[in-house]
Amino acid sequence: MPSYLEDFHVGQVERFGAYPVTRDEVLDFAGRFDPQPFHLDDDAAAASAIFGRLSASGWHTAAMTMRMLVDHNQALDRQTLGSPGIDEIRWLRPVYPGDTLRVETEVIEVRPSASRPTMGIVRLRLTTYNQQGEPVMRQVGANFQPRRPAAA
Amino acid sequence: MPSYLEDFHVGQVERFGAYPVTRDEVLDFAGRFDPQPFHLDDDAAAASAIFGRLSASGWHTAAMTMRMLVDHNQALDRQTLGSPGIDEIRWLRPVYPGDTLRVETEVIEVRPSASRPTMGIVRLRLTTYNQQGEPVMRQVGANFQPRRPAAA
Repeated sequence: MPSYLEDFHVGQVERFGAYPVTRDEVLDFAGRFDPQPFHLDDDAAAASAIFGRLSASGWHTAAMTMRMLVDHNQALDRQTLGSPGIDEIRWLRPVYPGDTLRVETEVIEVRPSASRPTMGIVRLRLTTYNQQGEPVMRQVGANFQPRRPAAA
Repeated sequence: MPSYLEDFHVGQVERFGAYPVTRDEVLDFAGRFDPQPFHLDDDAAAASAIFGRLSASGWHTAAMTMRMLVDHNQALDRQTLGSPGIDEIRWLRPVYPGDTLRVETEVIEVRPSASRPTMGIVRLRLTTYNQQGEPVMRQVGANFQPRRPAAA
């Protein structure tokens, strides 16, 4: 049973995910997409006032979070139609190899689309936590969801 | 010669990058981080009202853009100290295999950090374009930059 716009309500909270952050994946992602020294090299990371030791690219944290979100939605047979964008990303703490990440989402807005009558927009506040319960990233994002077809 | 906060000014525009979007990388990124059908499967993408054909994850577009930004900064021997976050991401058009992406940045704010006297914050409006000159993603982001040491 797919999820429709009408199945979401403001205040709805969901918690999910257990993503193990591996050193190999941190280095692979940074090597491809964010080759700054503090994401690739232990000594450079140790010299960084912000990171202290080798840490994941913030874009990698966003990507790992997306994977948890997609897996969660697919487990619920909930399909989104895409996303118009993100209102805010805050990288609150470094993410280190050995961490395990999880996600909490809260629905903050549900509204029909003005231009596309078959869909609507669900806005989420999304927080990614490490295994110590510390928030590492916060986002406000939006997804397009299909509207429930009217009864015939 | 590294770049300091004092080397940036509001209104500064830079254009750089030529990132070829390959089908293999689109499928690889989506398979790892955003396994929604319209990023993995031609038929599902063709059925999507938003995408029309197989397209890159928006997070992949952000990651490719980051790679162009890091390469550009490194070519200028410009080191950032990390980023506190992003104020906005808008995915304006799908990014398709075969596209070539480029970036334009504009500095919109330069200010010393209140809490860390050795660094400041440079805020950028960043637009990613495809080879037809169409904007595909817009961001407002920020970087920490070191301040120029005072003359002795």
